[in-house]
Amino acid sequence: VSARSLLLALVLGSLLASSALFAPRASRATQDQAAVPAAPAPFDVSRWRAEVERIVAAALECGEAPRMLRELCTLAPHRLAGSPGAERAVEWALAEMQRLGFENVRKEPCLVPRWERGAPELCEIVAPEEARGERLRILALGGSVGTPEGGLEADIVRVTTWDELAAAGERAHGRIVFFDRPMDPRHPDTFQAYGGAVDQRARGASAAARAGGVAALVRSMTLALDDAPHTGALHYEDGVERVPAAALSTLAARRLAELCARGAVRVRLVQSCRTLADVESANVVGELVGRELPDEVLVVGGHLDAWDVGQGAHDDGAGCVQSIEALRLLKQLGLRPRRTLRAVMFMNEENGTRGAQAYFAAHRDDMARHVLALESDRGGSVPRGFTTDANPRALETLRAIGALLRPAGIESVDPGYGGVDIAPMAAAGVVLVGLRPDSQRYFDVHHSENDVLAAVHPRELELGAAAMAALLYVAAELPEALPRNGR
Amino acid sequence: VSARSLLLALVLGSLLASSALFAPRASRATQDQAAVPAAPAPFDVSRWRAEVERIVAAALECGEAPRMLRELCTLAPHRLAGSPGAERAVEWALAEMQRLGFENVRKEPCLVPRWERGAPELCEIVAPEEARGERLRILALGGSVGTPEGGLEADIVRVTTWDELAAAGERAHGRIVFFDRPMDPRHPDTFQAYGGAVDQRARGASAAARAGGVAALVRSMTLALDDAPHTGALHYEDGVERVPAAALSTLAARRLAELCARGAVRVRLVQSCRTLADVESANVVGELVGRELPDEVLVVGGHLDAWDVGQGAHDDGAGCVQSIEALRLLKQLGLRPRRTLRAVMFMNEENGTRGAQAYFAAHRDDMARHVLALESDRGGSVPRGFTTDANPRALETLRAIGALLRPAGIESVDPGYGGVDIAPMAAAGVVLVGLRPDSQRYFDVHHSENDVLAAVHPRELELGAAAMAALLYVAAELPEALPRNGR
Repeated sequence: VSARSLLLALVLGSLLASSALFAPRASRATQDQAAVPAAPAPFDVSRWRAEVERIVAAALECGEAPRMLRELCTLAPHRLAGSPGAERAVEWALAEMQRLGFENVRKEPCLVPRWERGAPELCEIVAPEEARGERLRILALGGSVGTPEGGLEADIVRVTTWDELAAAGERAHGRIVFFDRPMDPRHPDTFQAYGGAVDQRARGASAAARAGGVAALVRSMTLALDDAPHTGALHYEDGVERVPAAALSTLAARRLAELCARGAVRVRLVQSCRTLADVESANVVGELVGRELPDEVLVVGGHLDAWDVGQGAHDDGAGCVQSIEALRLLKQLGLRPRRTLRAVMFMNEENGTRGAQAYFAAHRDDMARHVLALESDRGGSVPRGFTTDANPRALETLRAIGALLRPAGIESVDPGYGGVDIAPMAAAGVVLVGLRPDSQRYFDVHHSENDVLAAVHPRELELGAAAMAALLYVAAELPEALPRNGR
Repeated sequence: VSARSLLLALVLGSLLASSALFAPRASRATQDQAAVPAAPAPFDVSRWRAEVERIVAAALECGEAPRMLRELCTLAPHRLAGSPGAERAVEWALAEMQRLGFENVRKEPCLVPRWERGAPELCEIVAPEEARGERLRILALGGSVGTPEGGLEADIVRVTTWDELAAAGERAHGRIVFFDRPMDPRHPDTFQAYGGAVDQRARGASAAARAGGVAALVRSMTLALDDAPHTGALHYEDGVERVPAAALSTLAARRLAELCARGAVRVRLVQSCRTLADVESANVVGELVGRELPDEVLVVGGHLDAWDVGQGAHDDGAGCVQSIEALRLLKQLGLRPRRTLRAVMFMNEENGTRGAQAYFAAHRDDMARHVLALESDRGGSVPRGFTTDANPRALETLRAIGALLRPAGIESVDPGYGGVDIAPMAAAGVVLVGLRPDSQRYFDVHHSENDVLAAVHPRELELGAAAMAALLYVAAELPEALPRNGR
């Protein structure tokens, strides 16, 4: 998941949720739906109980998602859109889907931005004297401009709220603004904690510039206290000067805050990152063509690009291989459903969502026959449920499917988010669904060097793939298509 | 959890469940209860919603379970009953509960068996010639006798079922029986997979001896393929010769199976483990005395002993510190409930359950005032629910409490198991409850060198402690005591 999801969240006002620490998931959506007249009885899906059981057993016995993830993460550990790694990932996905015998395997082209980190960043304390020369671990934020050659040197002004920045007034002029509001650990759902802090990463650079600052340093978006900085995209506002911005590890942020509490702090910042011209890249698509209604399509996907640190194992190698695995499992079991299942590896989710836009543009005329889109982009941890924007009648059916997965640990299908890459399809009434893995460990690794293969548990990964395969299979097998969302 | 839980499971016939791969948890219990007349409405527990929310937030913001687990695992990583490590663990628990201001902190003595591993075990291939000298990683099973001085050498006979062993007849005479039935990976719940294989570890040695064998080697009880053997208690049958038994790592088992498939295999086995005279040890107890009904008691506990490899972080350091943390959280928040909460660190769960027996014996006359007993002994992973042997009316109330914890990830309170250490109290009608953490990672580490602090996630651990604290608080606060189980 990316800063784009944050921006969407900001737009949708979901930051309000962060004031309610312990709110049931998507309680507002539930309340809204209470006003809708009672839906007709959902399709009876219990006839597919045996197929669901077979899917789960096959995944746990001889699933291939861990093997695929190992291949992707070792062939293309760094695969930010436009990079050579991203192209290796595209070729891997293409070859893998062909090898598995998927149908209509193809690239669908898109232009993507190309941002390069350049040489490793440097953040060094200049003053106070007793800390001079100490280095703080940072990572430039995705999309950030570099510093002038040789770096920049400035005093720090530390803020934890937008109000504090406004109140800083003159004190922000010529300074580096240090955004130090941590994720709130009291949220049981770490995505709520993320949503309550990531505005600093997305908007900090432009806010610093508007206040007269020369750069932004942002406490990493994680609940872990360690020395790994977590990058992620920033959003430069139009018409505002673009200043460099980087994420500090949480240990580095703690150190800097300690120094700030004692007096003036001055640091030197060096970043050589830059944005180059757009380059051509692609989404990668493969299908299990429907047995009876091949023109009706259910999309399942993740995003193939990942940040340029770690291996993008959870974000979103997991979602990619789970999507491929979902189709592979059904193929292995001879379960070709009535409608077409289409796996889409989206490109450039992290810093542009160009793949998502390209998919929607290329298939715009076909959207009326897109029945459902499912995304896995919240990591490969043990699956707990699904979230969806489905209308009440479709929701009831999805809940009945979810209930078949109860023994596999799927506890709920709740109103909520689908995914960044499938989001454009909402405008066409396509029902969006997101896999909801357990969230406790995700932000320990997200967008950092910690997001490696060893952090993904093979059975947890497979259980997610199995849940996706089962949901897709039953939804694609229904006698009547799932009711579309109204506009 | 221990081999004792296996033996209980065998007695209760729950191995039958292993034939149903995908059975809903405790479905039979549910069916039984369908025959019970409808229960009266449960207590309305929603009035304690705010307290539950405060407990969860406090645990996630400033919980001390990770700090306690670090202390226990570093002060006393190896703490098998009767060992110096176990005594250090006893002293730590006593000091910690005193330091936290618990009331009536004390040791309650018990005699425990003392088993020592001795020098590191050796299992070396003697034939075939091309594998001669290869070493297979093993750990003697807890309670095993040693080999004769200098070891023993014998041919291998490999079996995967009891029927195969019976059919081996003469071929087992004078041989080492290699029990190589893996845990069935198709079970989504890994405890079901464990239950379907651990009979080999518990009964293999005596079965081998009855068949004329001279030793037993058992494939480790894990779903992971790696080189760490997993120990655990065996059970020698009365009147059957006691032969040495050890667990092979899954990689070693795979290697041995490959060799067996090609022809005769001979190995040399050396173990110097032995059982010494019983020694005195203790359960450690501390309380939060009830505000209005101090004589009515709710017990919460884990077991303080652990195997002599790894650090016993999940099994059961987690359950111990969660139990202490549950009381600490309530104390911190000023939530002293109507009835007494008693944290009990049980000794010797792994190889004797003497602490459990001693607690029951010492409090036998007081059992009528024991309202509930809660155990955490399935690891420190993210909590998913509780299981309980509660009667229908108590179950409804526990489910209502569980529903208050839904936003913290507690998805269910289901009929099922409580815990090994609290099991004796069932006979007195005490309602037993077990915390049910996610099971995917548990057997990767269980009873092996992998069970270390780093395998426990601090937030997952705290969420378990918070769920326990909330359940205990509400159950101890109810206007009327939870209905007891009939006998």
